[in-house]
Formats: sequence, C-alpha cells, structure tokens
Amino acid sequence: MVDVAIIGGGPAGIAAALNVQIRNRTLILFSKEAESKKILRAKRIDNYPGMPGISGGALSKAYRNHIEDMGIEVVLKPIDHVYAMGDYYVVTCADEMWEAKSVILATGVNDDKLIIGEEELVGQGVSYCATCDGRLYKGGSVMVIAYNESAYEEAGYLSELASVTFIPAKKGIKKPDGMEGPDYAKPAGIRREGRRVILETDQGEFYADCAFIFRNAIAPASLVPGIDAQEGCVKVNRDLSTNLPGLFAAGDITGAPYQIAKAVGEGATAGLSAVSYVNGLKDSSENGG
Amino acid sequence: MVDVAIIGGGPAGIAAALNVQIRNRTLILFSKEAESKKILRAKRIDNYPGMPGISGGALSKAYRNHIEDMGIEVVLKPIDHVYAMGDYYVVTCADEMWEAKSVILATGVNDDKLIIGEEELVGQGVSYCATCDGRLYKGGSVMVIAYNESAYEEAGYLSELASVTFIPAKKGIKKPDGMEGPDYAKPAGIRREGRRVILETDQGEFYADCAFIFRNAIAPASLVPGIDAQEGCVKVNRDLSTNLPGLFAAGDITGAPYQIAKAVGEGATAGLSAVSYVNGLKDSSENGG
Repeated sequence: MVDVAIIGGGPAGIAAALNVQIRNRTLILFSKEAESKKILRAKRIDNYPGMPGISGGALSKAYRNHIEDMGIEVVLKPIDHVYAMGDYYVVTCADEMWEAKSVILATGVNDDKLIIGEEELVGQGVSYCATCDGRLYKGGSVMVIAYNESAYEEAGYLSELASVTFIPAKKGIKKPDGMEGPDYAKPAGIRREGRRVILETDQGEFYADCAFIFRNAIAPASLVPGIDAQEGCVKVNRDLSTNLPGLFAAGDITGAPYQIAKAVGEGATAGLSAVSYVNGLKDSSENGG
Repeated sequence: MVDVAIIGGGPAGIAAALNVQIRNRTLILFSKEAESKKILRAKRIDNYPGMPGISGGALSKAYRNHIEDMGIEVVLKPIDHVYAMGDYYVVTCADEMWEAKSVILATGVNDDKLIIGEEELVGQGVSYCATCDGRLYKGGSVMVIAYNESAYEEAGYLSELASVTFIPAKKGIKKPDGMEGPDYAKPAGIRREGRRVILETDQGEFYADCAFIFRNAIAPASLVPGIDAQEGCVKVNRDLSTNLPGLFAAGDITGAPYQIAKAVGEGATAGLSAVSYVNGLKDSSENGG
C-alpha cells in the first residue's frame, strides 16, 4: 500500500508530490493527461513569482523537468472513484485499482461540459483567465460566459480594459448592473470568423474578440462518495484536510482564486499534511502493536 | 491614499504585490531588508515547483527581477504599527506614516529573539528548515531547538536521517518520547568549534553537526492592535482575511507549513482578496454618493 495517492498532475498535484517525496513517504501521482491543458493554454503568466512573463508551455516543461529530477513518475490514468475504507483508501480507474493510506485530490476544474467548438478555440479566442490574458484585448471587446459567481469579479476587471458582454450561462447567475448582455442565454456552440469569436445561444448570437469562460470546479461528490462539498468545491480546513480523515484537497478543486501560485501553495501544504497524517497512523499502530 | 499596503517583501508579499499590480490597484510594498534573509539562508530548495534545486540566492534574485519587471518598487522601511481606522488603515514606521484602504501582513517569522551567536552561524551550522537542509546531515547528528510545536514533526523527519538531540527551549514544549535531550533548557549562546555547533544552556552544553531552530511567527498583536491571533499566528479565513475588515495576512505569519510555495500561494490569494475588498468599497461609496 502506498502512503499517499495524488489525483491530478497539475501544479497542485506536482507541488504535493515534491513535498511527499522529500519527506521520504511513498507516493503515486495520477494524471489524466501528460501535460495540464489548462497551463498550456496560457500564453503569458505574469504572476508566478520568480518566472516573470513565462509561457504556459515553458512552465509546464519546467514542472515536468522538476518531477523527473526528483525521480517522480506520473501514472497516466484517469481516476474514476476514491473510496474511503476506514483507515485506508481505494482509488480506481476503469480497469485497475490501488490502495493508499492517504489521498490528495488535485483534479482541478471540470472540463466535461464544454461548449461545442470551445476546445478547438482555446488560446485562439477562448480564455479561462482574465488575469493572464485580459490585457491582450485592451481597447477591444470581450465576452464573459459565466457559469459561476467568480465571473463577476473577472468581468469587473475586464471592463477596465475592454468593452464587456456578460452572458449568464447558468440559472442563478445575474448580469451585473450596467453591463451589456442578455439576462440568461444557454450556449449552444462557439466558432471563429476572422478575428471575431461568435457564441451561438438560444437568445441569438454574440460577438467579441475573445470569450472568457468561468466554470465551477469539478463536482467532487461524483469522485469521492461522502465528501463534504459546497457549490461544487471541496470544503477544506487551513491544513487542506477535508471531512474525511486522510483525504486532502488542493488547487482549483478547493475554489477561487484559480491561480497557479495558489495551487502550488495548497499542494505543498496538502503534501506535508498528508505526510503528517501517515506518520500519525504509523505511531498509533506502533503503540497499539 | 493607496489601495493596498503590503507589509513584508518576502515571497508572500511579492506574490501579493504582483497580483494587486496586475489588477490595476495602487500598492505600496514595504520591506525591512532588500532581500529576505530567510531565503538567502537556503542552500538548496527542492520544492519550489518549476525551479528544481535552486539556491536561495538565485530564487531571491529571480523574485527581485520579477517585481522590477512589473514596475513595483520596494520601500525599505521597517513598519512599527498598523492601525485600523474604520474604513482605512494607517501604517507607521519610526518617522513616517501612510494611509491605505487595505493592508496585507506578510512579515514572516519573528527574528527578534535570536540566541547569542545564532545570526553569525546561519547557513554554517544553524538552519530553520528541515525539508531544505536535513539531508545535508544524513548519518550525522543534529540538534532541534524547539520554541514551538512545529518542531515535533520536523524532529521526526530529521530522526530518519540523523541522530537527534531535542531541546525544548520554551515552557510547554515537551521532548518527544524516545528522543535524546533535556526536558527543558534555556539557550544562552551558540558557537562553532571545528565541525561542531555547540549550544550553551542553563542545563549545560549540547553538541551536533547542525542546530535546527523552530520558532513561532511574529506576535502580531504588537504590530496590529485588535488583531485576532492564536499562539503567535494570525487567524485567517480561506480567503486570507482576518477579523479586521480589509486586513489580510499571508505566508509564515499565518503559521505552518513554513514553505515558500505556501507563502506565494497565500500571497496571491491575499492580493486578489484585497483587490476584491477595495473594489467593494468603491462600489458602496458610488452607491452611497
């Protein structure tokens, strides 16, 4: 049985793995993809301290080099479920299973419900980060496609740079006062024509230089039965523990802000918290036996 | 009046500054020193994702370059007090004062109560980070000088690498079962003789290849009257807000783990939370007027 299973190979999962490895606990790091698509999408990242203006591609490469340097392998398997078994966990994918004393969830934002055509336009008129890409559209026009409330703050920032069309794409999301856009529109597809991105909805079509899309983190209940989640985000304590003993969460899955620095910070803390938890198990079994 | 005053120029303060700057809010970044001594002390950092095995000196330089690139200046002033004035803050040093709508505390660990001789031995037999430096003493001997409970976990890790003498340096700290060392000893001085570090205490002298010292973060109540703190650490919520509206905290001052990745993650979150707070003030004053 491995000490710590880490689900997700993005910045949070990598930071967790580095710390578990340094602390000499065994680990397995799962990722559904060889490189985080979300990082690769970023043209220019200005707020990862120490690497000014780095591209998503270069940062992703630096991360892969770092874990290779440390002798950490990535297991390329999409994890279906994490089951709490009492004093250990079972982690499953379609055709295999693993046992771990402790688990760190770092699965990031759910990409399941993409708009038709969205994936093809990533980095070419579709963005997920106003802080990263907003300034590329200074003086132009942008759409904010809002699936969650984090879009309000992002749209406010974007409106200082460009004209904003705000599109509430989910019931319960309200268009901010004074912003252009429909009260609600259900996205049906997104495409590019020349320099414009066009969103097709049940309320007609909307145009802009770029579409910024803001979605909730993955619904964690479908991954881990019994986990305590709120509005699609795992509820965590300061040490990144969850309601299930030995289960930790880090990165976008714990909610906003959706920033790489925040993800690596939480990953580091979750990694050290998991090591501390595993050490505690060892002590109590030594005392008991 | 500036939007956000950031107290502390270490990793947390820098990460906060980058995010406030990108979000186009005005800021002032205070630091008592041109470079974080705590970072400079680290010979080799293995767990800052993307920069495998970087030295503290090189990482410090990368941070300075980054904020220079972004046009952020550091004001080299040691801040004495932060006063909550209702809807704004006053920040003071011995001979000057500033006003800010919001404040981020990122002052790190208190260095005030050093052991006599300690400062001269930093990086030469005195360390503050088992994860960073522990492996340098594999097969050798180390002392753990414990001012707080984080030392237990650190000593446990070190005991896997080297023989450990555990020295409780503060009332309330208990020596872990099975570890060598006195039940309590008051450090009086520390010196080096050849390859050995010698700690002088009221219980006699102790020897090792290296002394690891673990202290609490700064007592924040002396910096900010009215702040809610526990065991020397500022109590923060998930968004790094404190009990005082508009006051945020990030990095070592919020408690363990004392890791750079954790500090930059909290700095980024605190920066964005402060921006959100300042934007809220603006909205309500617009509505009110």
